[in-house]
Amino acid sequence: MSPAPEEGRTLRLDLEYDGSGFVGWQDQAEGRTVQGTLASAMGTLLQEEAAPVGSGRTDAGTHALGQVAHARVRSSMEADRILRGLNALLPEDVAVLRVLDVPPGFHARYGALGKRYRYRIDTARHALGRHAVWTLQRQLDLEPMAEAAAGLRGTLDFRAFCKADPPPESYACRIDAAEWRRRGHRWSFEIEADRFLRHMVRALVGTLVEVGQGRRSPRRFLELLEGADRSLAGSTSPAKGLCLLRVRYPEEVGGASGPETLESPGAL
Amino acid sequence: MSPAPEEGRTLRLDLEYDGSGFVGWQDQAEGRTVQGTLASAMGTLLQEEAAPVGSGRTDAGTHALGQVAHARVRSSMEADRILRGLNALLPEDVAVLRVLDVPPGFHARYGALGKRYRYRIDTARHALGRHAVWTLQRQLDLEPMAEAAAGLRGTLDFRAFCKADPPPESYACRIDAAEWRRRGHRWSFEIEADRFLRHMVRALVGTLVEVGQGRRSPRRFLELLEGADRSLAGSTSPAKGLCLLRVRYPEEVGGASGPETLESPGAL
Repeated sequence: MSPAPEEGRTLRLDLEYDGSGFVGWQDQAEGRTVQGTLASAMGTLLQEEAAPVGSGRTDAGTHALGQVAHARVRSSMEADRILRGLNALLPEDVAVLRVLDVPPGFHARYGALGKRYRYRIDTARHALGRHAVWTLQRQLDLEPMAEAAAGLRGTLDFRAFCKADPPPESYACRIDAAEWRRRGHRWSFEIEADRFLRHMVRALVGTLVEVGQGRRSPRRFLELLEGADRSLAGSTSPAKGLCLLRVRYPEEVGGASGPETLESPGAL
Repeated sequence: MSPAPEEGRTLRLDLEYDGSGFVGWQDQAEGRTVQGTLASAMGTLLQEEAAPVGSGRTDAGTHALGQVAHARVRSSMEADRILRGLNALLPEDVAVLRVLDVPPGFHARYGALGKRYRYRIDTARHALGRHAVWTLQRQLDLEPMAEAAAGLRGTLDFRAFCKADPPPESYACRIDAAEWRRRGHRWSFEIEADRFLRHMVRALVGTLVEVGQGRRSPRRFLELLEGADRSLAGSTSPAKGLCLLRVRYPEEVGGASGPETLESPGAL
Protein backbone atom coordinates (compact mmCIF):
# COMPACT_ATOMS: atom_id res chain seq x y z
CA MET A 1 0.00 0.00 0.00
CA SER A 2 1.34 3.42 -0.91
CA PRO A 3 1.58 5.92 1.94
CA ALA A 4 -1.33 8.31 2.49
CA PRO A 5 -0.63 11.92 1.37
CA GLU A 6 -0.57 13.19 4.94
CA GLU A 7 2.44 10.99 5.60
CA GLY A 8 4.34 13.29 3.34
CA ARG A 9 6.65 13.23 0.37
CA THR A 10 10.28 13.94 -0.39
CA LEU A 11 11.29 16.89 -2.55
CA ARG A 12 14.58 17.40 -4.31
CA LEU A 13 15.50 21.09 -4.78
CA ASP A 14 18.31 22.24 -7.11
CA LEU A 15 19.68 25.62 -6.08
CA GLU A 16 21.89 28.42 -7.31
CA TYR A 17 23.29 30.98 -4.91
CA ASP A 18 25.71 33.86 -4.64
CA GLY A 19 27.65 33.00 -1.50
CA SER A 20 28.85 36.58 -0.90
CA GLY A 21 26.09 37.42 1.55
CA PHE A 22 26.01 34.11 3.46
CA VAL A 23 28.10 32.58 6.24
CA GLY A 24 27.79 29.36 4.23
CA TRP A 25 25.19 26.72 3.39
CA GLN A 26 24.81 25.12 6.80
CA ASP A 27 22.75 26.58 9.64
CA GLN A 28 24.83 27.70 12.56
CA ALA A 29 24.48 29.70 15.75
CA GLU A 30 24.82 33.07 14.02
CA GLY A 31 24.67 34.56 10.57
CA ARG A 32 22.61 34.27 7.44
CA THR A 33 22.79 30.80 5.84
CA VAL A 34 21.42 29.42 2.58
CA GLN A 35 19.86 26.47 4.39
CA GLY A 36 18.08 28.78 6.85
CA THR A 37 16.95 31.15 4.10
CA LEU A 38 15.50 28.24 2.10
CA ALA A 39 13.84 26.72 5.20
CA SER A 40 12.21 30.05 5.96
CA ALA A 41 10.82 30.47 2.42
CA MET A 42 9.54 26.87 2.45
CA GLY A 43 7.87 27.49 5.80
CA THR A 44 6.08 30.56 4.46
CA LEU A 45 5.01 28.92 1.21
CA LEU A 46 3.99 25.49 2.52
CA GLN A 47 2.79 26.59 5.95
CA GLU A 48 4.73 23.85 7.66
CA GLU A 49 8.18 23.52 9.14
CA ALA A 50 10.70 22.34 6.53
CA ALA A 51 14.26 21.21 7.21
CA PRO A 52 16.15 21.01 3.92
CA VAL A 53 19.29 18.84 3.94
CA GLY A 54 22.07 19.75 1.49
CA SER A 55 24.43 17.55 -0.52
CA GLY A 56 27.18 19.07 1.59
CA ARG A 57 28.31 22.35 3.11
CA THR A 58 29.72 25.24 1.19
CA ASP A 59 31.94 27.78 2.95
CA ALA A 60 31.10 31.41 3.60
CA GLY A 61 31.54 33.26 0.29
CA THR A 62 31.48 30.12 -1.85
CA HIS A 63 28.92 30.02 -4.64
CA ALA A 64 26.76 27.29 -6.14
CA LEU A 65 25.26 26.78 -9.58
CA GLY A 66 24.07 23.30 -8.69
CA GLN A 67 23.63 22.70 -4.97
CA VAL A 68 21.03 20.03 -4.21
CA ALA A 69 18.88 19.68 -1.09
CA HIS A 70 16.08 17.33 -0.08
CA ALA A 71 13.21 17.94 2.31
CA ARG A 72 10.33 15.90 3.66
CA VAL A 73 7.06 17.83 3.44
CA ARG A 74 3.39 17.09 4.01
CA SER A 75 2.08 19.72 1.58
CA SER A 76 0.39 18.46 -1.57
CA MET A 77 1.30 21.55 -3.60
CA GLU A 78 2.54 20.65 -7.10
CA ALA A 79 6.33 20.71 -7.54
CA ASP A 80 6.06 23.34 -10.27
CA ARG A 81 4.03 25.64 -8.02
CA ILE A 82 6.58 25.16 -5.25
CA LEU A 83 9.35 26.19 -7.68
CA ARG A 84 7.55 29.39 -8.67
CA GLY A 85 6.41 30.14 -5.13
CA LEU A 86 9.88 29.77 -3.64
CA ASN A 87 11.43 31.94 -6.34
CA ALA A 88 8.88 34.63 -5.57
CA LEU A 89 9.70 34.49 -1.86
CA LEU A 90 13.47 33.97 -1.81
CA PRO A 91 15.90 36.91 -1.73
CA GLU A 92 17.63 37.60 -5.03
CA ASP A 93 20.90 35.89 -4.06
CA VAL A 94 19.24 32.45 -3.98
CA ALA A 95 17.33 30.87 -6.88
CA VAL A 96 15.58 27.52 -7.09
CA LEU A 97 16.34 25.95 -10.47
CA ARG A 98 14.29 22.78 -10.15
CA VAL A 99 11.90 21.04 -7.75
CA LEU A 100 11.25 17.31 -8.17
CA ASP A 101 9.24 14.70 -6.34
CA VAL A 102 11.62 11.86 -5.50
CA PRO A 103 11.20 8.51 -3.71
CA PRO A 104 11.06 8.80 0.09
CA GLY A 105 14.52 7.24 0.47
CA PHE A 106 16.27 10.02 -1.46
CA HIS A 107 19.01 11.74 0.52
CA ALA A 108 20.86 14.71 -1.02
CA ARG A 109 24.12 13.84 0.73
CA TYR A 110 24.19 10.05 0.94
CA GLY A 111 22.60 9.61 -2.47
CA ALA A 112 25.19 11.72 -4.34
CA LEU A 113 27.41 9.82 -6.78
CA GLY A 114 29.89 12.67 -7.15
CA LYS A 115 30.36 16.40 -7.30
CA ARG A 116 32.07 18.92 -9.50
CA TYR A 117 33.60 22.19 -8.34
CA ARG A 118 35.14 25.06 -10.27
CA TYR A 119 37.72 27.50 -8.98
CA ARG A 120 38.34 30.76 -10.82
CA ILE A 121 41.44 32.93 -10.80
CA ASP A 122 42.00 36.18 -12.65
CA THR A 123 45.55 37.45 -13.02
CA ALA A 124 44.32 40.95 -13.90
CA ARG A 125 42.14 43.20 -11.79
CA HIS A 126 38.48 43.39 -12.83
CA ALA A 127 35.43 45.15 -11.48
CA LEU A 128 32.69 42.96 -12.95
CA GLY A 129 32.44 39.41 -11.63
CA ARG A 130 34.91 40.17 -8.86
CA HIS A 131 32.81 38.35 -6.24
CA ALA A 132 33.31 35.02 -7.98
CA VAL A 133 37.01 35.07 -8.71
CA TRP A 134 40.32 35.14 -6.85
CA THR A 135 42.30 38.09 -8.21
CA LEU A 136 45.93 37.10 -8.16
CA GLN A 137 48.21 39.68 -9.70
CA ARG A 138 51.08 37.30 -10.38
CA GLN A 139 52.06 35.43 -13.51
CA LEU A 140 51.24 31.74 -13.66
CA ASP A 141 52.66 29.08 -15.95
CA LEU A 142 50.00 26.71 -17.28
CA GLU A 143 52.24 23.79 -18.20
CA PRO A 144 53.37 22.67 -14.71
CA MET A 145 49.88 23.35 -13.30
CA ALA A 146 48.35 21.14 -16.00
CA GLU A 147 50.98 18.46 -15.37
CA ALA A 148 50.25 18.48 -11.63
CA ALA A 149 46.49 18.36 -12.25
CA ALA A 150 46.93 15.42 -14.64
CA GLY A 151 48.31 13.42 -11.70
CA LEU A 152 45.05 13.90 -9.83
CA ARG A 153 43.38 10.68 -10.99
CA GLY A 154 41.96 7.74 -9.12
CA THR A 155 41.75 7.28 -5.37
CA LEU A 156 44.27 9.42 -3.48
CA ASP A 157 44.92 10.52 0.09
CA PHE A 158 43.99 14.17 0.65
CA ARG A 159 45.17 14.50 4.25
CA ALA A 160 47.52 17.32 3.15
CA PHE A 161 44.60 19.19 1.57
CA CYS A 162 41.92 19.33 4.19
CA LYS A 163 40.86 21.06 7.34
CA ALA A 164 40.87 18.04 9.66
CA ASP A 165 38.87 19.54 12.51
CA PRO A 166 36.81 17.49 13.10
CA PRO A 167 38.73 14.67 11.35
CA PRO A 168 36.88 13.10 8.41
CA GLU A 169 35.99 9.40 8.37
CA SER A 170 38.56 8.90 5.63
CA TYR A 171 41.03 10.99 3.64
CA ALA A 172 40.52 8.95 0.47
CA CYS A 173 38.71 10.59 -2.46
CA ARG A 174 38.33 9.21 -5.96
CA ILE A 175 39.12 11.92 -8.52
CA ASP A 176 37.28 11.51 -11.81
CA ALA A 177 38.47 14.71 -13.52
CA ALA A 178 40.81 17.59 -12.73
CA GLU A 179 41.71 20.20 -15.30
CA TRP A 180 42.99 23.75 -15.67
CA ARG A 181 41.76 25.99 -18.46
CA ARG A 182 43.06 29.39 -19.40
CA ARG A 183 41.60 32.12 -21.56
CA GLY A 184 43.85 35.17 -21.50
CA HIS A 185 44.22 36.21 -17.87
CA ARG A 186 41.22 34.13 -16.77
CA TRP A 187 41.97 30.73 -15.29
CA SER A 188 39.66 28.04 -14.11
CA PHE A 189 40.21 24.72 -12.41
CA GLU A 190 37.49 22.08 -12.48
CA ILE A 191 37.56 18.99 -10.36
CA GLU A 192 35.12 16.12 -10.06
CA ALA A 193 35.28 13.51 -7.30
CA ASP A 194 33.10 11.02 -5.43
CA ARG A 195 33.53 13.15 -2.29
CA PHE A 196 35.43 16.22 -1.10
CA LEU A 197 36.96 17.02 2.28
CA ARG A 198 36.65 20.41 4.01
CA HIS A 199 38.66 23.12 2.19
CA MET A 200 40.01 20.47 -0.18
CA VAL A 201 39.54 22.34 -3.47
CA ARG A 202 40.78 25.60 -1.96
CA ALA A 203 43.91 23.91 -0.53
CA LEU A 204 44.57 22.16 -3.86
CA VAL A 205 44.27 25.47 -5.73
CA GLY A 206 46.48 27.29 -3.22
CA THR A 207 49.14 24.64 -3.75
CA LEU A 208 48.73 24.37 -7.53
CA VAL A 209 49.25 28.12 -7.78
CA GLU A 210 52.65 27.61 -6.13
CA VAL A 211 53.38 25.09 -8.88
CA GLY A 212 52.32 27.69 -11.45
CA GLN A 213 54.72 30.18 -9.89
CA GLY A 214 57.64 27.75 -10.01
CA ARG A 215 57.82 27.52 -6.23
CA ARG A 216 56.97 23.82 -6.17
CA SER A 217 57.43 21.14 -8.86
CA PRO A 218 54.53 19.01 -10.15
CA ARG A 219 56.32 15.97 -8.69
CA ARG A 220 56.55 17.56 -5.23
CA PHE A 221 52.88 18.44 -5.47
CA LEU A 222 51.93 14.85 -6.26
CA GLU A 223 54.07 13.49 -3.42
CA LEU A 224 51.73 15.32 -1.03
CA LEU A 225 49.00 12.88 -2.08
CA GLU A 226 50.67 10.08 -0.14
CA GLY A 227 49.15 11.24 3.13
CA ALA A 228 51.43 14.19 3.89
CA ASP A 229 50.70 16.60 6.72
CA ARG A 230 48.51 19.67 5.97
CA SER A 231 51.39 21.97 6.88
CA LEU A 232 53.42 20.70 3.92
CA ALA A 233 50.89 21.86 1.31
CA GLY A 234 50.14 25.45 0.23
CA SER A 235 47.67 27.86 1.73
CA THR A 236 43.90 27.77 1.36
CA SER A 237 42.78 30.00 -1.51
CA PRO A 238 39.91 32.48 -0.94
CA ALA A 239 36.38 31.02 -0.76
CA LYS A 240 34.92 33.47 -3.29
CA GLY A 241 36.72 31.82 -6.25
CA LEU A 242 34.95 28.53 -5.56
CA CYS A 243 31.64 27.37 -7.01
CA LEU A 244 29.80 24.06 -6.58
CA LEU A 245 28.88 23.35 -10.19
CA ARG A 246 26.96 20.10 -9.97
CA VAL A 247 26.07 17.09 -7.91
CA ARG A 248 25.50 13.79 -9.70
CA TYR A 249 22.65 11.39 -8.86
CA PRO A 250 21.11 8.41 -10.66
CA GLU A 251 18.87 9.39 -13.58
CA GLU A 252 15.75 8.04 -11.82
CA VAL A 253 16.06 10.77 -9.18
CA GLY A 254 16.76 13.55 -11.67
CA GLY A 255 20.40 13.00 -12.68
CA ALA A 256 22.98 15.74 -12.26
CA SER A 257 22.18 19.26 -11.10
CA GLY A 258 23.71 22.40 -12.53
CA PRO A 259 23.61 24.38 -15.76
CA GLU A 260 23.54 22.66 -19.13
CA THR A 261 26.55 24.58 -20.35
CA LEU A 262 29.28 26.09 -18.24
CA GLU A 263 30.54 28.12 -21.17
CA SER A 264 27.56 30.40 -20.82
CA PRO A 265 28.73 33.90 -19.86
CA GLY A 266 26.09 34.25 -17.18
CA ALA A 267 27.25 31.04 -15.54
CA LEU A 268 29.74 33.15 -13.64
CA MET B 1 59.31 72.90 -30.19
CA SER B 2 57.67 70.26 -28.06
CA PRO B 3 55.92 71.51 -24.93
CA ALA B 4 57.90 71.53 -21.69
CA PRO B 5 56.88 68.77 -19.22
CA GLU B 6 55.30 71.25 -16.82
CA GLU B 7 52.82 72.18 -19.51
CA GLY B 8 51.39 68.73 -19.08
CA ARG B 9 50.34 65.73 -21.10
CA THR B 10 47.12 63.97 -22.03
CA LEU B 11 46.33 60.50 -20.71
CA ARG B 12 43.80 58.07 -22.07
CA LEU B 13 42.37 55.72 -19.43
CA ASP B 14 40.36 52.59 -20.30
CA LEU B 15 38.04 51.56 -17.48
CA GLU B 16 35.84 48.71 -16.34
CA TYR B 17 33.20 49.24 -13.68
CA ASP B 18 30.31 47.61 -11.94
CA GLY B 19 27.64 50.30 -12.09
CA SER B 20 25.58 48.86 -9.21
CA GLY B 21 27.09 51.14 -6.59
CA PHE B 22 27.20 54.35 -8.64
CA VAL B 23 24.66 57.02 -9.57
CA GLY B 24 26.30 56.90 -13.00
CA TRP B 25 29.51 57.99 -14.71
CA GLN B 26 29.03 61.73 -14.60
CA ASP B 27 29.65 63.90 -11.54
CA GLN B 28 26.50 65.42 -10.14
CA ALA B 29 25.34 67.27 -7.05
CA GLU B 30 24.91 64.12 -4.97
CA GLY B 31 25.92 60.50 -5.00
CA ARG B 32 28.93 58.38 -5.79
CA THR B 33 30.04 58.63 -9.44
CA VAL B 34 32.70 56.79 -11.43
CA GLN B 35 34.11 60.08 -12.71
CA GLY B 36 34.43 61.46 -9.17
CA THR B 37 35.92 58.21 -7.84
CA LEU B 38 38.52 58.19 -10.62
CA ALA B 39 39.31 61.91 -10.13
CA SER B 40 39.85 61.33 -6.44
CA ALA B 41 42.25 58.38 -6.99
CA MET B 42 44.16 60.40 -9.63
CA GLY B 43 44.42 63.32 -7.20
CA THR B 44 45.87 61.08 -4.50
CA LEU B 45 48.31 59.32 -6.82
CA LEU B 46 49.50 62.28 -8.87
CA GLN B 47 49.21 64.93 -6.17
CA GLU B 48 47.41 67.29 -8.50
CA GLU B 49 43.81 68.00 -9.38
CA ALA B 50 42.64 65.80 -12.26
CA ALA B 51 39.39 66.18 -14.18
CA PRO B 52 38.81 63.05 -16.29
CA VAL B 53 36.37 63.44 -19.20
CA GLY B 54 34.47 60.33 -20.32
CA SER B 55 33.46 59.17 -23.79
CA GLY B 56 29.90 59.66 -22.60
CA ARG B 57 27.66 59.16 -19.60
CA THR B 58 26.42 55.85 -18.37
CA ASP B 59 23.25 55.68 -16.27
CA ALA B 60 23.05 54.69 -12.61
CA GLY B 61 23.41 50.90 -12.49
CA THR B 62 24.85 50.56 -16.00
CA HIS B 63 28.18 48.76 -16.31
CA ALA B 64 31.23 49.24 -18.49
CA LEU B 65 33.86 46.85 -19.76
CA GLY B 66 35.38 49.52 -21.99
CA GLN B 67 34.65 53.07 -20.87
CA VAL B 68 37.32 55.56 -21.98
CA ALA B 69 38.31 58.83 -20.33
CA HIS B 70 41.00 61.41 -20.98
CA ALA B 71 42.68 63.75 -18.55
CA ARG B 72 45.29 66.50 -18.77
CA VAL B 73 47.96 66.06 -16.10
CA ARG B 74 51.30 67.67 -15.25
CA SER B 75 52.77 64.61 -13.52
CA SER B 76 55.67 62.89 -15.27
CA MET B 77 54.87 59.48 -13.74
CA GLU B 78 55.12 56.67 -16.30
CA ALA B 79 51.80 55.47 -17.72
CA ASP B 80 52.41 51.94 -16.45
CA ARG B 81 53.02 53.18 -12.91
CA ILE B 82 49.84 55.26 -13.10
CA LEU B 83 47.94 52.11 -14.12
CA ARG B 84 49.25 50.11 -11.16
CA GLY B 85 48.93 53.01 -8.74
CA LEU B 86 45.31 53.74 -9.66
CA ASN B 87 44.37 50.07 -9.39
CA ALA B 88 45.89 49.97 -5.92
CA LEU B 89 43.89 53.05 -4.88
CA LEU B 90 40.53 52.54 -6.59
CA PRO B 91 37.67 50.70 -4.86
CA GLU B 92 37.08 47.19 -6.15
CA ASP B 93 34.10 48.14 -8.34
CA VAL B 94 36.32 50.20 -10.69
CA ALA B 95 39.39 48.86 -12.52
CA VAL B 96 41.74 50.65 -14.87
CA LEU B 97 42.52 48.36 -17.80
CA ARG B 98 44.96 50.57 -19.67
CA VAL B 99 46.69 53.96 -19.41
CA LEU B 100 48.19 55.51 -22.54
CA ASP B 101 49.95 58.76 -23.36
CA VAL B 102 48.08 60.32 -26.27
CA PRO B 103 48.53 63.52 -28.28
CA PRO B 104 47.29 66.68 -26.49
CA GLY B 105 44.32 67.00 -28.86
CA PHE B 106 42.81 63.66 -27.84
CA HIS B 107 39.26 63.95 -26.53
CA ALA B 108 37.49 60.83 -25.22
CA ARG B 109 34.09 62.06 -26.37
CA TYR B 110 34.73 64.04 -29.55
CA GLY B 111 37.45 61.66 -30.74
CA ALA B 112 35.28 58.53 -30.53
CA LEU B 113 34.46 56.89 -33.88
CA GLY B 114 31.75 54.69 -32.43
CA LYS B 115 30.59 52.68 -29.46
CA ARG B 116 29.24 49.23 -28.77
CA TYR B 117 26.76 48.36 -26.03
CA ARG B 118 25.42 45.02 -24.88
CA TYR B 119 22.10 44.42 -23.16
CA ARG B 120 21.47 41.17 -21.30
CA ILE B 121 18.17 39.50 -20.50
CA ASP B 122 17.62 36.26 -18.63
CA THR B 123 14.21 34.61 -18.91
CA ALA B 124 14.92 32.44 -15.85
CA ARG B 125 15.72 33.63 -12.36
CA HIS B 126 19.39 33.41 -11.37
CA ALA B 127 21.37 34.36 -8.29
CA LEU B 128 24.83 34.72 -9.81
CA GLY B 129 25.36 37.59 -12.22
CA ARG B 130 21.96 39.08 -11.34
CA HIS B 131 23.40 42.63 -11.13
CA ALA B 132 24.23 42.62 -14.84
CA VAL B 133 21.06 41.19 -16.34
CA TRP B 134 17.39 42.05 -16.67
CA THR B 135 15.42 39.08 -15.36
CA LEU B 136 12.28 38.83 -17.42
CA GLN B 137 10.17 35.82 -16.59
CA ARG B 138 8.26 35.76 -19.87
CA GLN B 139 8.81 33.79 -23.03
CA LEU B 140 10.40 35.58 -25.96
CA ASP B 141 10.44 34.58 -29.62
CA LEU B 142 13.83 35.14 -31.26
CA GLU B 143 12.70 35.26 -34.88
CA PRO B 144 10.71 38.54 -34.85
CA MET B 145 13.28 40.15 -32.54
CA ALA B 146 16.07 39.23 -34.95
CA GLU B 147 13.99 40.48 -37.89
CA ALA B 148 13.39 43.82 -36.16
CA ALA B 149 17.08 44.14 -35.22
CA ALA B 150 18.10 43.40 -38.81
CA GLY B 151 16.24 46.57 -39.84
CA LEU B 152 18.50 48.62 -37.59
CA ARG B 153 21.10 49.52 -40.20
CA GLY B 154 22.40 52.81 -41.51
CA THR B 155 21.38 56.27 -40.36
CA LEU B 156 17.98 56.35 -38.65
CA ASP B 157 15.94 58.74 -36.54
CA PHE B 158 15.84 57.67 -32.89
CA ARG B 159 13.46 60.33 -31.59
CA ALA B 160 11.11 57.57 -30.41
CA PHE B 161 13.91 55.93 -28.44
CA CYS B 162 15.45 58.68 -26.37
CA LYS B 163 14.99 60.76 -23.30
CA ALA B 164 14.83 64.19 -24.95
CA ASP B 165 15.38 66.32 -21.88
CA PRO B 166 17.49 68.24 -22.71
CA PRO B 167 16.89 67.70 -26.44
CA PRO B 168 19.92 66.30 -28.31
CA GLU B 169 21.52 68.21 -31.20
CA SER B 170 20.22 65.56 -33.56
CA TYR B 171 18.19 62.36 -33.42
CA ALA B 172 20.18 60.74 -36.22
CA CYS B 173 22.49 57.82 -35.36
CA ARG B 174 24.30 55.58 -37.79
CA ILE B 175 23.91 51.94 -36.74
CA ASP B 176 26.78 49.70 -37.77
CA ALA B 177 25.62 46.47 -36.09
CA ALA B 178 22.60 45.28 -34.13
CA GLU B 179 22.11 41.66 -33.23
CA TRP B 180 20.32 39.38 -30.78
CA ARG B 181 21.93 36.19 -29.55
CA ARG B 182 20.36 33.51 -27.46
CA ARG B 183 21.85 30.67 -25.46
CA GLY B 184 19.13 28.81 -23.59
CA HIS B 185 17.34 31.32 -21.40
CA ARG B 186 20.16 33.88 -21.72
CA TRP B 187 19.66 36.60 -24.32
CA SER B 188 21.94 39.38 -25.37
CA PHE B 189 21.55 42.30 -27.71
CA GLU B 190 24.63 44.05 -29.07
CA ILE B 191 24.49 47.32 -30.91
CA GLU B 192 27.22 49.46 -32.41
CA ALA B 193 26.68 53.03 -33.61
CA ASP B 194 28.55 56.26 -34.26
CA ARG B 195 26.64 57.83 -31.36
CA PHE B 196 23.86 57.00 -28.91
CA LEU B 197 21.12 59.17 -27.42
CA ARG B 198 20.13 59.10 -23.76
CA HIS B 199 18.35 55.86 -22.82
CA MET B 200 18.46 54.80 -26.47
CA VAL B 201 19.62 51.19 -26.01
CA ARG B 202 17.30 50.67 -23.06
CA ALA B 203 14.30 52.05 -24.99
CA LEU B 204 15.18 49.90 -28.02
CA VAL B 205 15.41 46.79 -25.82
CA GLY B 206 12.16 47.59 -24.02
CA THR B 207 10.45 47.86 -27.41
CA LEU B 208 12.16 44.85 -29.00
CA VAL B 209 10.99 42.74 -26.06
CA GLU B 210 7.42 43.68 -27.01
CA VAL B 211 8.22 42.37 -30.48
CA GLY B 212 9.51 39.15 -28.92
CA GLN B 213 6.26 38.80 -26.99
CA GLY B 214 4.15 39.25 -30.11
CA ARG B 215 2.72 42.54 -28.87
CA ARG B 216 4.26 44.54 -31.73
CA SER B 217 5.31 43.41 -35.22
CA PRO B 218 8.85 43.93 -36.57
CA ARG B 219 7.34 46.25 -39.19
CA ARG B 220 5.62 48.40 -36.56
CA PHE B 221 8.88 48.55 -34.66
CA LEU B 222 10.77 49.79 -37.73
CA GLU B 223 8.12 52.42 -38.49
CA LEU B 224 9.07 54.07 -35.20
CA LEU B 225 12.44 54.92 -36.78
CA GLU B 226 10.83 57.53 -38.96
CA GLY B 227 10.87 60.10 -36.17
CA ALA B 228 7.91 58.87 -34.12
CA ASP B 229 7.12 60.29 -30.70
CA ARG B 230 8.74 58.64 -27.64
CA SER B 231 5.31 57.71 -26.29
CA LEU B 232 4.73 55.36 -29.23
CA ALA B 233 7.69 53.12 -28.40
CA GLY B 234 8.00 50.66 -25.51
CA SER B 235 9.25 51.31 -22.01
CA THR B 236 12.85 51.83 -20.97
CA SER B 237 14.39 48.55 -19.81
CA PRO B 238 16.31 48.46 -16.49
CA ALA B 239 19.78 50.05 -16.47
CA LYS B 240 21.48 47.03 -14.88
CA GLY B 241 21.18 44.90 -18.04
CA LEU B 242 23.26 47.43 -19.99
CA CYS B 243 27.02 47.43 -20.42
CA LEU B 244 29.26 49.77 -22.45
CA LEU B 245 31.48 47.20 -24.16
CA ARG B 246 33.84 49.33 -26.21
CA VAL B 247 34.58 52.73 -27.65
CA ARG B 248 36.40 52.89 -30.99
CA TYR B 249 39.22 55.35 -31.73
CA PRO B 250 41.86 55.55 -34.47
CA GLU B 251 44.71 53.06 -34.01
CA GLU B 252 47.24 55.85 -33.41
CA VAL B 253 45.49 56.76 -30.17
CA GLY B 254 45.13 53.16 -28.99
CA GLY B 255 42.27 51.80 -31.09
CA ALA B 256 39.19 50.32 -29.47
CA SER B 257 38.78 49.79 -25.74
CA GLY B 258 37.20 46.75 -24.14
CA PRO B 259 37.98 43.07 -23.68
CA GLU B 260 39.56 41.04 -26.47
CA THR B 261 36.83 38.45 -26.32
CA LEU B 262 33.28 38.94 -25.14
CA GLU B 263 32.70 35.21 -24.98
CA SER B 264 34.86 35.02 -21.89
CA PRO B 265 32.74 33.93 -18.90
CA GLY B 266 34.16 36.61 -16.64
CA ALA B 267 33.23 39.28 -19.14
CA LEU B 268 29.89 39.43 -17.41
